[in-house]
Amino acid sequence: MWFGIIMAGGSGTRFWPLSRELYPKQFLSLDGGSSLLQGTIDRVVPLIPQERLWIMVGPKHEAETRRILRLAEREGLPARVFVEPQSRNTLTPLAVAAACLVRSDPDAVLAVLASDHLIAPQEKFLALLKQACTIAQEQDAILTFGVRPTRPETGFGYIEMGELIPDESKGIFSVFQVKNFVEKPDRERAERYITGKKHLWNSGMLVFRAQVFLEELRQYQPEFHKNLETYTETLKTESESRALADLYANAPLTSVDYGLLEKSRKVWTISTDLDWKDVGSWSALDEIAEKDEAGNIVRGNVVSFHNENCILYGDKRILATIGLKDLVVVDTDDATLVCHKDEAQKVREVVNELKSRNCIEAQEHRTTHRPWGHYTILDQGPNYKIKNVTVNPRSRLSYQMHLHRSEHWVVIAGTARITLEGQEIFLHVNQSIDIPKTTRHRIENPGKVPLVIIEVQNGEYLEEDDIIRFSDDYQRQTEENPTGSGTGEKA
Amino acid sequence: MWFGIIMAGGSGTRFWPLSRELYPKQFLSLDGGSSLLQGTIDRVVPLIPQERLWIMVGPKHEAETRRILRLAEREGLPARVFVEPQSRNTLTPLAVAAACLVRSDPDAVLAVLASDHLIAPQEKFLALLKQACTIAQEQDAILTFGVRPTRPETGFGYIEMGELIPDESKGIFSVFQVKNFVEKPDRERAERYITGKKHLWNSGMLVFRAQVFLEELRQYQPEFHKNLETYTETLKTESESRALADLYANAPLTSVDYGLLEKSRKVWTISTDLDWKDVGSWSALDEIAEKDEAGNIVRGNVVSFHNENCILYGDKRILATIGLKDLVVVDTDDATLVCHKDEAQKVREVVNELKSRNCIEAQEHRTTHRPWGHYTILDQGPNYKIKNVTVNPRSRLSYQMHLHRSEHWVVIAGTARITLEGQEIFLHVNQSIDIPKTTRHRIENPGKVPLVIIEVQNGEYLEEDDIIRFSDDYQRQTEENPTGSGTGEKA
Repeated sequence: MWFGIIMAGGSGTRFWPLSRELYPKQFLSLDGGSSLLQGTIDRVVPLIPQERLWIMVGPKHEAETRRILRLAEREGLPARVFVEPQSRNTLTPLAVAAACLVRSDPDAVLAVLASDHLIAPQEKFLALLKQACTIAQEQDAILTFGVRPTRPETGFGYIEMGELIPDESKGIFSVFQVKNFVEKPDRERAERYITGKKHLWNSGMLVFRAQVFLEELRQYQPEFHKNLETYTETLKTESESRALADLYANAPLTSVDYGLLEKSRKVWTISTDLDWKDVGSWSALDEIAEKDEAGNIVRGNVVSFHNENCILYGDKRILATIGLKDLVVVDTDDATLVCHKDEAQKVREVVNELKSRNCIEAQEHRTTHRPWGHYTILDQGPNYKIKNVTVNPRSRLSYQMHLHRSEHWVVIAGTARITLEGQEIFLHVNQSIDIPKTTRHRIENPGKVPLVIIEVQNGEYLEEDDIIRFSDDYQRQTEENPTGSGTGEKA
Repeated sequence: MWFGIIMAGGSGTRFWPLSRELYPKQFLSLDGGSSLLQGTIDRVVPLIPQERLWIMVGPKHEAETRRILRLAEREGLPARVFVEPQSRNTLTPLAVAAACLVRSDPDAVLAVLASDHLIAPQEKFLALLKQACTIAQEQDAILTFGVRPTRPETGFGYIEMGELIPDESKGIFSVFQVKNFVEKPDRERAERYITGKKHLWNSGMLVFRAQVFLEELRQYQPEFHKNLETYTETLKTESESRALADLYANAPLTSVDYGLLEKSRKVWTISTDLDWKDVGSWSALDEIAEKDEAGNIVRGNVVSFHNENCILYGDKRILATIGLKDLVVVDTDDATLVCHKDEAQKVREVVNELKSRNCIEAQEHRTTHRPWGHYTILDQGPNYKIKNVTVNPRSRLSYQMHLHRSEHWVVIAGTARITLEGQEIFLHVNQSIDIPKTTRHRIENPGKVPLVIIEVQNGEYLEEDDIIRFSDDYQRQTEENPTGSGTGEKA
């Protein structure tokens, strides 16, 4: 069977302040439609149904990934969200996925896709994917997807084509041996690649039979391959998650390109003229978004006079722009970026600076999503924090307790069922309740419309990690379930 | 006696979004110190004590003006805040002040000062003011303050000097007849004025004996002068405020320059090389504020890389700027401005656009000051509004009632004395109370530290004008005092 492996890591720096460490690029919509992750799933499901998709994420991105999957409300079994215990580049997650899948299906074919690329047209992509999967099914080959370059891009790696493989090139796309992988070239070399017609952009997409991949791994990463086998023996046992953590702790910190593809002799490339975009920075939006007559890309609450060739992203607040040229302005709830397009790469420096100052704005948005809904911090000061908490219909928070803060809730929309020390109370709009420190409590929305509560927290310590959970609908760590599979989030 | 008349009108457009219609330039600190209004008062009080200062304001600016006066905590009687019932340019308020003052002091000398200029050095200004007041006391002359130009400025009006008046020029500064007032010139003429040395900048400051001013008014604005006399007959009677409203309704919509000075033959000018600045736009900040090595003026929460010659004003949120040149960026709670310095005059267009869209951001800040403290809107949506309300020590709001909203209060700092339908209740941190619709209520801070309350409003109509006041410490309109001298504000 064919499986899709969607790589959804990311550090959230390049599109800051719209992206954050907890909210990287794949969660954004860059072209005004759905999120890039959702777009990736939509693109592949006509060929590979969602129950055969694995989405490889870090612990920090699990909740938002699950939220996006829920939003899609697709019928049938959901995609699998595979939570990597830590980030070890790309070789490790692919090896783990291959090793797991080959046990239930020795002939499993894996199609590896990035979660944050834009690809069009859909029909051509599906034809390409189908041809690649069909070849991989029958041949002992690892297929890379090479995109015919349209400009001397210095931001991508390249694949140097070798011999044509005539038998496999009878489909729409031609297939070649790979002669060489080339790192990001300088301008001059990139221009030679264009005229030489022997090089393709390395899109990062791959298709292979799991068995072939694992064989190559045994040959070129024997130590890691051995550890991988140790891990797969624990699958579906109690020690599985511990074994996975061990595997990752000792896994090579290398990319699949460097750690395997550049060594293997079984690597082919399928050549395509797909419209493929790995939008790498704010300024690269110019390639994909619609512009007004003056060349501006404008979204949100913007009042704009005499601007030229700008990217202007407003949010709720008013963003007024006058007489600007070649600028990126991105206004969010808690941070504003104003940046010359030529310097868009330096957004990374800003994020690093914020991290070194321990600024939460590098990591999170002011609104945080949870499996049960979301909350926004409205105000905070010494000993208090005010939140707008929205609970989705028929959802509830964990049954929990805080050591250092009391909470006071006022319902402003919907109906709440509150559990306080085992007692159930219904609260309607305009009603309120006090939750003293060290009392067990739960908010539930039993209704059909969102429940909105204003929460006033008081106490000497107001961080999210002051929480003791007694039970939880989302398998997060509780007193009864100390390891908690739904890691990485509180409340 | 000598009196100071401080003109504190203003529309709040030029320094938007830091200034607003309700918060014009004189309330801002442009040089990082106290507000321009406070600076104006500080500058004049060594010569004219504050109880002899009249601050001429519109109804919208009364509360903030009084707040600034309270903040100064000067000993002795306070300055008088004269609330003009409507804005009629500059002739009317000066005539009214002169007519009122002349009744108690027939020899009253008035020094007219703008509230939003920067002037240095202090000693020279005081010497100038003293010389002008001394002359005005003895001569039938209206003295303008002419500043010797240092550049061919096209944004100011000019005064053409006539004959020297030798007897009055024995002080530090020379005094001349005024030959002519010149409107803002074009660049070429402005350059000629510089080389010709016959022209001075018209600073707008004036000194005159009230009687002289009124005599000239009788001659050149006889109709208005008659109405003025009708009004002054009602002074200290019940009909005074009504008569003032009538006077303003029919007053000429003209400036003192155009309506009187250009006609009068008694106008002199006192020539000075004072460092006088009427900072007219964001870009003009370049003249007054301190810069870093790259020529940037930076304030607030700014992360800045590779910027040149920019004005970067952050607030609470993070403002990240990269690779900018010659830009003004001003970030506030509810609005952000990004503007090329050469286009700073066009901020006016933005404000007009916002007004035409009925955007509150043209008028108010998200934090609103009241005589008893201030409040900030944290969040609002259909049928709810959340405020952080801060009540100053020993202050209280009016005893009031709302028809369309209930309120729920949670104390997060300080101690509150709540009156609800005649009952008094103390609330401490962490305690809360419900205020149903149509119940009479009052919040008071009886303590020594600020009282901070989170207010959750619920109802079908949540504007500030849903208020019925029963009594008020600040003479605002109540059921018992339907006209209310403290106009223009709610709550």
